[in-house]
Amino acid sequence: MSDTDKPKVEVAFTPGKFADYYNDQPIVVVIDVLRATSAICAAFANGVSKIIPVASLDEAKAYQAQGYLVGAEREGKIVEGFSFGNSPYTYIDQDYSGKTIVLTTTNGTKAITVASEAPQVAIGSLVNLDALSNWLCEQNQSVLLLASGWKDKFNLEDTICAGAIAERLMGTGAFQADQDSTIAARYLYKQAEQNYFGFLKASSHRRRLRKLNLNRDVSYCLTPNQVDVVPVVQEGAIVPVVKGMGLGKVS
Amino acid sequence: MSDTDKPKVEVAFTPGKFADYYNDQPIVVVIDVLRATSAICAAFANGVSKIIPVASLDEAKAYQAQGYLVGAEREGKIVEGFSFGNSPYTYIDQDYSGKTIVLTTTNGTKAITVASEAPQVAIGSLVNLDALSNWLCEQNQSVLLLASGWKDKFNLEDTICAGAIAERLMGTGAFQADQDSTIAARYLYKQAEQNYFGFLKASSHRRRLRKLNLNRDVSYCLTPNQVDVVPVVQEGAIVPVVKGMGLGKVS
Repeated sequence: MSDTDKPKVEVAFTPGKFADYYNDQPIVVVIDVLRATSAICAAFANGVSKIIPVASLDEAKAYQAQGYLVGAEREGKIVEGFSFGNSPYTYIDQDYSGKTIVLTTTNGTKAITVASEAPQVAIGSLVNLDALSNWLCEQNQSVLLLASGWKDKFNLEDTICAGAIAERLMGTGAFQADQDSTIAARYLYKQAEQNYFGFLKASSHRRRLRKLNLNRDVSYCLTPNQVDVVPVVQEGAIVPVVKGMGLGKVS
Repeated sequence: MSDTDKPKVEVAFTPGKFADYYNDQPIVVVIDVLRATSAICAAFANGVSKIIPVASLDEAKAYQAQGYLVGAEREGKIVEGFSFGNSPYTYIDQDYSGKTIVLTTTNGTKAITVASEAPQVAIGSLVNLDALSNWLCEQNQSVLLLASGWKDKFNLEDTICAGAIAERLMGTGAFQADQDSTIAARYLYKQAEQNYFGFLKASSHRRRLRKLNLNRDVSYCLTPNQVDVVPVVQEGAIVPVVKGMGLGKVS
C-alpha cells in the first residue's frame, strides 16, 4: 500500500480547532484525560450501561428533574445541586451497574458535542489507551484525535494521550500523518511516556486539580491501560462498543 | 522577587488563539520562521530602513501603485505582479539599503495585524534569537510569543522558535510561565535544538517549501543568530530598535 492510500491519524489540540482539522474522517476520538473521558471509561469498566453527555447545566438539570442520575462538573468541582462530577472514583466507589448516567463537564462533554458531526465518535484516555488503539487499528479508517483542552486552550495531558494513540497507530505502519500537530503530539508523548507524573508536574491542570485535593483522581487518570473498554457515541448516548475482561475496580 | 511578581512569558500557537492568551502583556513577539519574520530580520541586517506590513493583496497593490517596493507572498510563492515575496535572500542578493519595503505574506503579516492591539510588537525568528531574547530580558516585562502558524494551524518551526525564546527568558530566573502551550514549546525546542533540520524534516511547511525548491531559504531561516537586530512595530511600520554589529550578509 502506498503512503497516499493509508488512512491518516491527525490531532486537533482543542475543540475550537476541530473545523480546521476535520476533513470528513470517519472516526473522531474525544480525549479529556483529566478527567471526563477517563471517568467515562471507568464507568463502563464498572458496569454502567449508558452515559448521556450534555453540554449545558440547563440540560443536566432537566434530566435531573426527570429522575436521572446526573453528574455535573465545572472548574474541576462538582456543581452545587448535583451529587457527583467527573471523578472516575464515582463509578469505582459506588455501584452504578446497569445504570444510565447523564454527564456535563467543563471541557469533555463540549468536545463530544463538537465532534458529533463525525459518523463515529469514540472516547479516548490513557486508561483505555491500548484497547482504543487496537480497536482503531481494526477499523483501519482515518481518525481525528480531538483533545478537549482547557477552555479551548492547549493542554499537555490530552496532547500526550493523543500522541500515545498516534504513536501506536503509526507504529503498525498502516497509518500516516500530515499535520505538525500530530508530529508535536508524538514528540511530547515520547518525552512523557517514561514518567507521566514528572512530565506533567508543571502542567496547568495538574496544578488546578492539586489545589482541589484531587491527587487520587490524577493518579488514576495518568495510569495507562487500566480498563479494556472502547466507548462510542450511538444516537446521542455513549455506550461501550468493546468491553473485554478489563481490570475491573482499581483502588 | 517572589514567583508571582515575575513577568510572564507565554506562547500562543496561532493568530486565531491570540485572544485566548493575550492578557494585556506589554510586549507581543510575532514569529514566522518560514519565512516572513526571518526575511524581515535579514532586511534590517542588510540596510533596509523600514517595512510596512499589510494584510491584504489589495493594500499591497495600492502601495505598489504609489511607487513603493512591494513584496507579496501567498502559498509560499511570489504573487503574480510583484517582484519579490518573503525570501530573506531578497535583501541579501539585492541592495535595498535605506529603502522602505511594503510586505504582505500568507501568515506573518496577518499575525502582526492581530498583535497590533498590544503596546509593543516585536519581530522574532531563529536568525535574531539571542538579540531578541537579550532585548526582551532588558525590557523585563511580560511577553506573549505569537506563532504565525500556517493558515491558523499549529506549526512546528514557529513553536520551536517560541520555545527557544521562552527557554532563554526562563533561564535567567527572571521570568515565569503558566500555560501548557509554553511548557510544550520549551519541551519541543529542547528536542529540536541539536538538529533543527532533522527535527523539522517531516514538518508540513518544510515539505511545502521543498516542493517549491526553497531549500536555500530554509537553511537560512533555520540557522540561529545570524543577525543582531530587533525589529519592532512603530506607528504601523516595522523598524529596527536594536541594530548592532550583525553578521551582515550571509551566503
